[in-house]
Amino acid sequence: MEFLVHVEIRWPENGDPAELARLTEAEQDRAAALGADGTIRRLWRIPGRRANWGIWVAPDATTLHAAIASLPLFPWLDVEVHPLAGHPSDPTPF
Amino acid sequence: MEFLVHVEIRWPENGDPAELARLTEAEQDRAAALGADGTIRRLWRIPGRRANWGIWVAPDATTLHAAIASLPLFPWLDVEVHPLAGHPSDPTPF
Amino acid sequence: MEFLVHVEIRWPENGDPAELARLTEAEQDRAAALGADGTIRRLWRIPGRRANWGIWVAPDATTLHAAIASLPLFPWLDVEVHPLAGHPSDPTPF
Amino acid sequence: MEFLVHVEIRWPENGDPAELARLTEAEQDRAAALGADGTIRRLWRIPGRRANWGIWVAPDATTLHAAIASLPLFPWLDVEVHPLAGHPSDPTPF
Amino acid sequence: MEFLVHVEIRWPENGDPAELARLTEAEQDRAAALGADGTIRRLWRIPGRRANWGIWVAPDATTLHAAIASLPLFPWLDVEVHPLAGHPSDPTPF
Amino acid sequence: MEFLVHVEIRWPENGDPAELARLTEAEQDRAAALGADGTIRRLWRIPGRRANWGIWVAPDATTLHAAIASLPLFPWLDVEVHPLAGHPSDPTPF
Amino acid sequence: MEFLVHVEIRWPENGDPAELARLTEAEQDRAAALGADGTIRRLWRIPGRRANWGIWVAPDATTLHAAIASLPLFPWLDVEVHPLAGHPSDPTPF
Amino acid sequence: MEFLVHVEIRWPENGDPAELARLTEAEQDRAAALGADGTIRRLWRIPGRRANWGIWVAPDATTLHAAIASLPLFPWLDVEVHPLAGHPSDPTPF
Amino acid sequence: MEFLVHVEIRWPENGDPAELARLTEAEQDRAAALGADGTIRRLWRIPGRRANWGIWVAPDATTLHAAIASLPLFPWLDVEVHPLAGHPSDPTPF
Amino acid sequence: MEFLVHVEIRWPENGDPAELARLTEAEQDRAAALGADGTIRRLWRIPGRRANWGIWVAPDATTLHAAIASLPLFPWLDVEVHPLAGHPSDPTPF
Repeated sequence: MEFLVHVEIRWPENGDPAELARLTEAEQDRAAALGADGTIRRLWRIPGRRANWGIWVAPDATTLHAAIASLPLFPWLDVEVHPLAGHPSDPTPF
Repeated sequence: MEFLVHVEIRWPENGDPAELARLTEAEQDRAAALGADGTIRRLWRIPGRRANWGIWVAPDATTLHAAIASLPLFPWLDVEVHPLAGHPSDPTPF
Repeated sequence: MEFLVHVEIRWPENGDPAELARLTEAEQDRAAALGADGTIRRLWRIPGRRANWGIWVAPDATTLHAAIASLPLFPWLDVEVHPLAGHPSDPTPF
Repeated sequence: MEFLVHVEIRWPENGDPAELARLTEAEQDRAAALGADGTIRRLWRIPGRRANWGIWVAPDATTLHAAIASLPLFPWLDVEVHPLAGHPSDPTPF
Repeated sequence: MEFLVHVEIRWPENGDPAELARLTEAEQDRAAALGADGTIRRLWRIPGRRANWGIWVAPDATTLHAAIASLPLFPWLDVEVHPLAGHPSDPTPF
Repeated sequence: MEFLVHVEIRWPENGDPAELARLTEAEQDRAAALGADGTIRRLWRIPGRRANWGIWVAPDATTLHAAIASLPLFPWLDVEVHPLAGHPSDPTPF
Repeated sequence: MEFLVHVEIRWPENGDPAELARLTEAEQDRAAALGADGTIRRLWRIPGRRANWGIWVAPDATTLHAAIASLPLFPWLDVEVHPLAGHPSDPTPF
Repeated sequence: MEFLVHVEIRWPENGDPAELARLTEAEQDRAAALGADGTIRRLWRIPGRRANWGIWVAPDATTLHAAIASLPLFPWLDVEVHPLAGHPSDPTPF
Repeated sequence: MEFLVHVEIRWPENGDPAELARLTEAEQDRAAALGADGTIRRLWRIPGRRANWGIWVAPDATTLHAAIASLPLFPWLDVEVHPLAGHPSDPTPF
Repeated sequence: MEFLVHVEIRWPENGDPAELARLTEAEQDRAAALGADGTIRRLWRIPGRRANWGIWVAPDATTLHAAIASLPLFPWLDVEVHPLAGHPSDPTPF
């Protein structure tokens, strides 16, 4: 099943930039792994924001949650999940 | 450039079902054409609603608008366009 | 997979009461069938409103959409679907 | 009487992770007790969030408040309570 | 149990004034009966609007719904119910 | 004149619990005084929240503000005031 | 007591323009009377809208409601009333 | 003074397309005149919508309102006006 | 030109009360000066809140911004400006 | 392609004013460079706020994001990007 996932990063205004840099690097590694195993299919930055839209694939919401919660920045993420149903006019399913 | 497009169909509560059926068929034909020429890349139904999320591709917002406005149901659509930027962790760009 | 589904009935202010009565009866029949096959597990009325909260079960959002769209009142429903993940402290899974 | 309860955990962005771990463990114990005595009937995680939806049972809102306020994380919870009425098409009341 | 109930009357913009007058009179009779039997304890008009706030008393949300749905204007009402819990500083419970 | 008053307590997430306990006790004393002089007529807790709904009586909004601002927790309160008009169907005015 | 009043005119999209013209003229007469007796102290148009902000004076919300409900366009008005308290830095009370 | 103006066209779902076509042509003529006299400086379509953003210039809000109200489609427009102040980093004032 | 200005004071929850007292006194002096020169015409407290509604007069939004930004509390103010147009039924322009 | 960009500066309530002054100066330099190379075409202050509206030009959202993220204050900015399409009645394209 596919999900449209909206993520905003809420790093504290007075948080430590070095810690954010370290976490961001770990985040990229984890995102790469989730991309490689097919959990994240697409990822776009929302222009002007520390935020992204993604197409995630998981058998159900429980597995999806585990994948999102595995991100190193998870404690600072504000995430909204939109379930997606198939559309008869979808031109190019993955 | 890619756009995330949210569409809700606002058919009048007391509209003619036959007219809606005719327009829906024409809509599917037009969506197929937009899929074939690469304008619509993905399309998902929002479960429980007469609504969809789509990934559209167009050189700019002017061209995107022309494509959306070419849909037979356009006068009854409530459309919101979210511009998308590339993300360094996007695993599988089209 | 379980879904929390919020439904508001938007019958036109000047709609035909007899037609609404006929559709409501058909709706109850269809809801009973969806309850019998395990698609609807729980259903509660929202006090003061023509609206309900329900726990629905479906393998994915595509199947869920088909079930909701099978309701006779579907053209007049405003539906929001919340995907549900398992919780380690859930005391009594169905 | 049944209530649909929405809970978001608002742990401070720069709060102490060890304290959160300790409180979370105490929270699980208290949730288990509320499950055992029939106050919490179902509990689901909201995917991607530190949040949950639950079906709670209490004779009235005063008793419900006391149960929610007994949670160790209560000072950091943002809670919304939706009262539920019986629905004639509810297939499987607890 | 007490409930704070918010009611907006959504009479169609082009509805029949005579019908509204007839329904309003029936509404007042029904409200008087609900006041006499202790279901409605207080009722205030929201200044400038066809709307009211009320304190209603009912054993549970199911009974409350039946009382609200007994109002002749119910098909045109937009109602929101807020459950109320006892407060230790409440000076003058009814 | 009567007012419906909605109060949310916004105690800082990392505020001192001892200070909150001291202020809460002072708040209860002040609320009791406002109840005794007829300014607060009813007070209900909003289940699950550090919040309340109240019916306040004051000759005008200036006097009402002075009463609310006299609460020891005032600097941490988020207050919304709804003016109330008399309703012809109000069953039991105070 | 002073009130800040926000008014939007919701004339039906397909309402009769002649009827609107007749009602608007009657509205102006009634507004002039409310201005002459000191109920309306100031009135401003919201640019681009069929809407206005006004400063109204009335002994209480019940009297204010009666004044607003006396407007010929009242059935088509969406009105929000904000109660106003005196401010120590108010330079020029009426 | 400059204003950012947001316009949505709310043509009735079942309005007459011929009348809309006639009004749209008249609207274009009026917009051209407002462009020629410097009232409208820029105008952009909001992609996917019957809506636009514009930069309007007028000595004050009263004059601006008169200009907007002179549009033939004004009865069907939902308009929001944002006042604009000069910015020291504005690179290219008109 | 007149503006309706809405101001909320966002003093940090754990800010220094002595500093707030000092700034508030300076704020009152500045407000008095803006009242004396005709920039602030009316000012009302919003009951229950550290907030106010005001009628401000300035030749344009640039000058208005300078006046608001001259307030000592400006860094902690959340301000919304509503432009006002003349209304033919305004009974008593300043 | 043109974009309408809304920016709010979220400097921490208890942030260091000297650091803000330093960053603001650097921000002005960067904004001047973005104005000189044609990326920022217009910039207006929103009266009463630390916020602005701007017309930005970029070939696509990816390039626009890079430009916005190059601002020294970017970690404290809340940015919303509105894509703009050409309008047939636009009087004076840049």
